[in-house]
Amino acid sequence: MEKTIKQDEIVNFLKKYGFVFPCSEIYNGLANAWDYGPLGVLLKNNLKSLWWKYFITSKANMVGLDSAIFLNPNVWKASGHIESFSDPLIDCKHCKKRFRADKIINDQVKNAKINENSSLESLQKIIKENHIKCPNCQHEDWTEIRKFNLMFQTNQSIVKDKENTLYLRPETAQGIFINFNNIQRTSSLKLPFGVGQIGKSFRNEITPGNFIFRTREFEQMEIEFFCFPQQAAEFFNFFLNEINFFLLKKLKLNKEKIKTYEHPKNDLSHYAKRTIDFQYRFPHGWSELWGLSNRTDYDLLNHQKNSGKNLMYLDQKNGKKIIPYVIEPSVGVERLLYAIICDTFTYQKIKDNDYREVLCLSYELCPYKVAVLPLSVSLINDAKEIYQQILNANISATFATSGSIGKRYRKQDAIGTYYCLTIDFETANDQCVTVRHRDTMRQKRIKISEINNFLSKKMINE
Amino acid sequence: MEKTIKQDEIVNFLKKYGFVFPCSEIYNGLANAWDYGPLGVLLKNNLKSLWWKYFITSKANMVGLDSAIFLNPNVWKASGHIESFSDPLIDCKHCKKRFRADKIINDQVKNAKINENSSLESLQKIIKENHIKCPNCQHEDWTEIRKFNLMFQTNQSIVKDKENTLYLRPETAQGIFINFNNIQRTSSLKLPFGVGQIGKSFRNEITPGNFIFRTREFEQMEIEFFCFPQQAAEFFNFFLNEINFFLLKKLKLNKEKIKTYEHPKNDLSHYAKRTIDFQYRFPHGWSELWGLSNRTDYDLLNHQKNSGKNLMYLDQKNGKKIIPYVIEPSVGVERLLYAIICDTFTYQKIKDNDYREVLCLSYELCPYKVAVLPLSVSLINDAKEIYQQILNANISATFATSGSIGKRYRKQDAIGTYYCLTIDFETANDQCVTVRHRDTMRQKRIKISEINNFLSKKMINE
Repeated sequence: MEKTIKQDEIVNFLKKYGFVFPCSEIYNGLANAWDYGPLGVLLKNNLKSLWWKYFITSKANMVGLDSAIFLNPNVWKASGHIESFSDPLIDCKHCKKRFRADKIINDQVKNAKINENSSLESLQKIIKENHIKCPNCQHEDWTEIRKFNLMFQTNQSIVKDKENTLYLRPETAQGIFINFNNIQRTSSLKLPFGVGQIGKSFRNEITPGNFIFRTREFEQMEIEFFCFPQQAAEFFNFFLNEINFFLLKKLKLNKEKIKTYEHPKNDLSHYAKRTIDFQYRFPHGWSELWGLSNRTDYDLLNHQKNSGKNLMYLDQKNGKKIIPYVIEPSVGVERLLYAIICDTFTYQKIKDNDYREVLCLSYELCPYKVAVLPLSVSLINDAKEIYQQILNANISATFATSGSIGKRYRKQDAIGTYYCLTIDFETANDQCVTVRHRDTMRQKRIKISEINNFLSKKMINE
Repeated sequence: MEKTIKQDEIVNFLKKYGFVFPCSEIYNGLANAWDYGPLGVLLKNNLKSLWWKYFITSKANMVGLDSAIFLNPNVWKASGHIESFSDPLIDCKHCKKRFRADKIINDQVKNAKINENSSLESLQKIIKENHIKCPNCQHEDWTEIRKFNLMFQTNQSIVKDKENTLYLRPETAQGIFINFNNIQRTSSLKLPFGVGQIGKSFRNEITPGNFIFRTREFEQMEIEFFCFPQQAAEFFNFFLNEINFFLLKKLKLNKEKIKTYEHPKNDLSHYAKRTIDFQYRFPHGWSELWGLSNRTDYDLLNHQKNSGKNLMYLDQKNGKKIIPYVIEPSVGVERLLYAIICDTFTYQKIKDNDYREVLCLSYELCPYKVAVLPLSVSLINDAKEIYQQILNANISATFATSGSIGKRYRKQDAIGTYYCLTIDFETANDQCVTVRHRDTMRQKRIKISEINNFLSKKMINE
């Protein structure tokens, strides 16, 4: 049975069980910032590992990279971020609240024909002509619209001057572009090939929100796939299929909650020739989950121009030099994690008035593969031995002693633990434990000596 | 045979093979910043995974956390970082260069009795009395010494005012302390228990350097281990042994290059009761590798005071409430990686005038477990099938076709690849390949159908 889950329910559920905590909660938090608790960090690591294995390790023409968060500021000049990576902001003179001009227009004007390339003048005109009021105080008393850059700035080496300004990267992509020559030289890869990276990015958003959907600090999983210009359309489609496969077959997300949205030509980013977003139906509505763009030769060309370094690729077949095109599949870790939670959280009826929460995560994603549960206090020592045997095999496991066995099953179901192993009074005699499967709730008895093997095999099969 | 390796040789070696690149190299770099290339990111991930498995997954009383880089600024007020996390800096008025006052004193005054608690006045006095000269221009024309905070500052939400100041965390530890209640509540752990975290930290050092040893942006692996105050000495020793075991038995570092250094009482950090550093003999000399501190109840007590929230632990055995003591083992990922490279890089004589570079990494750390090498161009397709079979099992592997087989072996030895698989003209007939072991250079023939099993078993045994 499915019921529509509200954002608040998800937030409370994740906080209750130790997945996601409000950041700096004891100091009344930090707006739109979140920490990942003992279960959250395991789920996040499993998700990153799954992405890395699927898109990097298992593919012959893919390699990884881990570039720095602080780059030479000229990188952001060349990439267009200093000039163009900004939001149009407007202040209400009456209540002093600040808004994104494009957002209040879209909220209040039906079929407003604006996009990310609309001029500040055209936005100002729409606000004036439609007598748009402040969403906070209902006055119509606006400042001029100004562009505010979304990159966080700081200063290195303590002295505050222009030369020492550093930006926190707003995307991991540029770290890949500027290493194009280094990667090619050391890996000996021939076109087409891709470079993947997982890492934090930062955007000084004026309107973050919807839980972990949009935060100022977030983690990206990006691939920059380099190919001959004439192959760009082919590899755009290749990654369209790959993302689809990963979402539906690897993560097993609900097909009904996924759709694609192609950006119209006049609404493309300054670097893109074609962009398709995979959207997910979050509790707050359909929103971007995974972006796929054809970035053309925009970035490499600009870096070549601005750095004065040759970033051309030599095609050894015909001796010609070209600037490769780039296909970029880019997804936020937290956003994907949020989609997975929304998708796998179920509230199941067992019998009349008896419900259970279950997080139906795939085995690979489960924070804990197994929980070890002694049926009685007198069995704790025996159970601990079995628990340590599992941990020694590096299988993620937990141990729980308090509450009835039924209540402990329910808690493990809620946090997505795949199996429960119960140690009972027969265990000492028959050297067996009861294994209970989370989804079917079916139980069977297996030998203690077979536990690790049983759990490892499951991992390999999925 | 061992020869002493210089820092420059290591830097060049790592750049040549794609482990570490100078950050933003095409823009003439960014001082003391580095990117991790295709091999570096694999080695780094393997190292983090090894630490996580050893200290978190395999231990019954350990859980993980992933807290945010931006925390509520009051966290840094409570922790003492805004007040005390600073270097004493002095400028040469003549050449305008800036220095750490304590560093130039230690460099130029024998047996200078200064430590991190020395007052600015006492430092100034020593500089004056000893007529210390500028290391750059040899003049004696100094400004006053001032304290400069090492935390990077930025502003959120665009408006620049005091209320919006954010700091980039200088350590991951505080994210753990402020979540003490959340972690305890959701994990049901009883004292003693520990919380581990891997993540980036940032310090605006005035004198970074020695390659990746000290950088402004770095990754930490920290554990905060909470225990009853009377257990603090016992668990300090426990982690002393654990770190030692991890360095010598898991990472197999050379015992001769590791020593411990206990901080004298008058040179302890403001939060510490006892600190022992594991030092490693880097090319630039003996330097701190892994710190172990007894942080007492300093942090929890300060957060309780400043937040007004109860951070006491209820001992259910006697109903008493206490503030736990904290033992903190803390190590930098890049520093540990650097030590591993220095330790495993060898230049081996094979026979007269025939040498090879070998990175003798343990199987678990190897960026590539295996390289697939077709002996001839006509065997590339067959070899690619075998390569993909290995990749499908998520075993990290590489493929190389150019150069003689001898040269390809040498390159794989240099990057630490554990095995080479050669596909030759017999392969199609006998369905076998030649496996060569990196360290012994011994070869044997195994069936294609046995390759994955062979490689997986090696992984489990080590």
